[in-house]
Amino acid sequence: MIILGVDPGLTRCGVGVIEAGAYRRLSFIHVDVVRSDPHESQDLRLLKIYNGLCAKIDEFAPDTVSIERVFAQENRNTVLGTAQAAGMAMLAAAQRNIPVALHTPTESKMAITGNGKAEKIQVERMVARILSLNTLPKPADAADALAIAICHALRPQGALEGGEREQHLTAAQRQWAQASQHAAHGRGVRRGM
Amino acid sequence: MIILGVDPGLTRCGVGVIEAGAYRRLSFIHVDVVRSDPHESQDLRLLKIYNGLCAKIDEFAPDTVSIERVFAQENRNTVLGTAQAAGMAMLAAAQRNIPVALHTPTESKMAITGNGKAEKIQVERMVARILSLNTLPKPADAADALAIAICHALRPQGALEGGEREQHLTAAQRQWAQASQHAAHGRGVRRGM
Repeated sequence: MIILGVDPGLTRCGVGVIEAGAYRRLSFIHVDVVRSDPHESQDLRLLKIYNGLCAKIDEFAPDTVSIERVFAQENRNTVLGTAQAAGMAMLAAAQRNIPVALHTPTESKMAITGNGKAEKIQVERMVARILSLNTLPKPADAADALAIAICHALRPQGALEGGEREQHLTAAQRQWAQASQHAAHGRGVRRGM
Repeated sequence: MIILGVDPGLTRCGVGVIEAGAYRRLSFIHVDVVRSDPHESQDLRLLKIYNGLCAKIDEFAPDTVSIERVFAQENRNTVLGTAQAAGMAMLAAAQRNIPVALHTPTESKMAITGNGKAEKIQVERMVARILSLNTLPKPADAADALAIAICHALRPQGALEGGEREQHLTAAQRQWAQASQHAAHGRGVRRGM
């Protein structure tokens, strides 16, 4: 199963591709950053990001596109552009009938390090270890894109199915479910996407 | 000059088309709402909105697509979906080499009623009067889409060119420039798009 992870961004949009084999064995396939020029107009920047993501999806033909979920309460200057870049990834996948999964940064950290509040460097080291990379993936956007792809591969089945009841989950799965719930509700109502 | 206005929304995305002739004479061409089902997944909803907007743009071949600007500080549940719907409109226009204009609600009210803080019903009445409609445009999303198209047609040249200095502007143009500035800076730094 090929998973293409997207760390959405309007200036730099990370793309990471992995293969998830039997026994949760994960292999690195590709990592890159799709960029747009901040001096161009918003519409042309979105077109650039969209075209770049379409090219990656067509090249690697993923079974799932896994995208980092954007929250409105992250009230940074760039949040709308980030949401729109995520929208470009969703559109590109939907146009090709490829399922889309949205994962929060907390879910990603939990899946990769076992700690939803792990430091960035911890996550990068674990990404490198899980994918048997000799060096840390660079740049950071690319590492995050690999992390969000790995997150989808390592997610507990309870999270996958969505309909599983908590009592059927293992301890790790319960922890995951709580992290998801925290992300969806604890930080305020889930916003918009 | 054909102008296609978009009042972005994920559930209901208003589309209004007008023709701007000589002496700022404006004629009504079309109004409609592109919808997506709130029960569908985000990616399929964006695909629906994108396809609907592409169909409208291809049908009416506008010279400009005028879109209501979205602000992150409108911290509603729906702001990210709204921004993504606006992104779909920008992408659809950019793919066809059609220029995109973003206008704030304040600019739109100012252009149509002369008052940047006009009530919704005032704006709707003026839209109907400007376009010589016998009844108020319905539904509200559609009226807003016509308003944003009219706003682009009636904008002062100072706003159009962007490079004009304030001292070259008429009183109305200065008022407009101030409204734009208020929208961009007075409500906090402009966010993301």
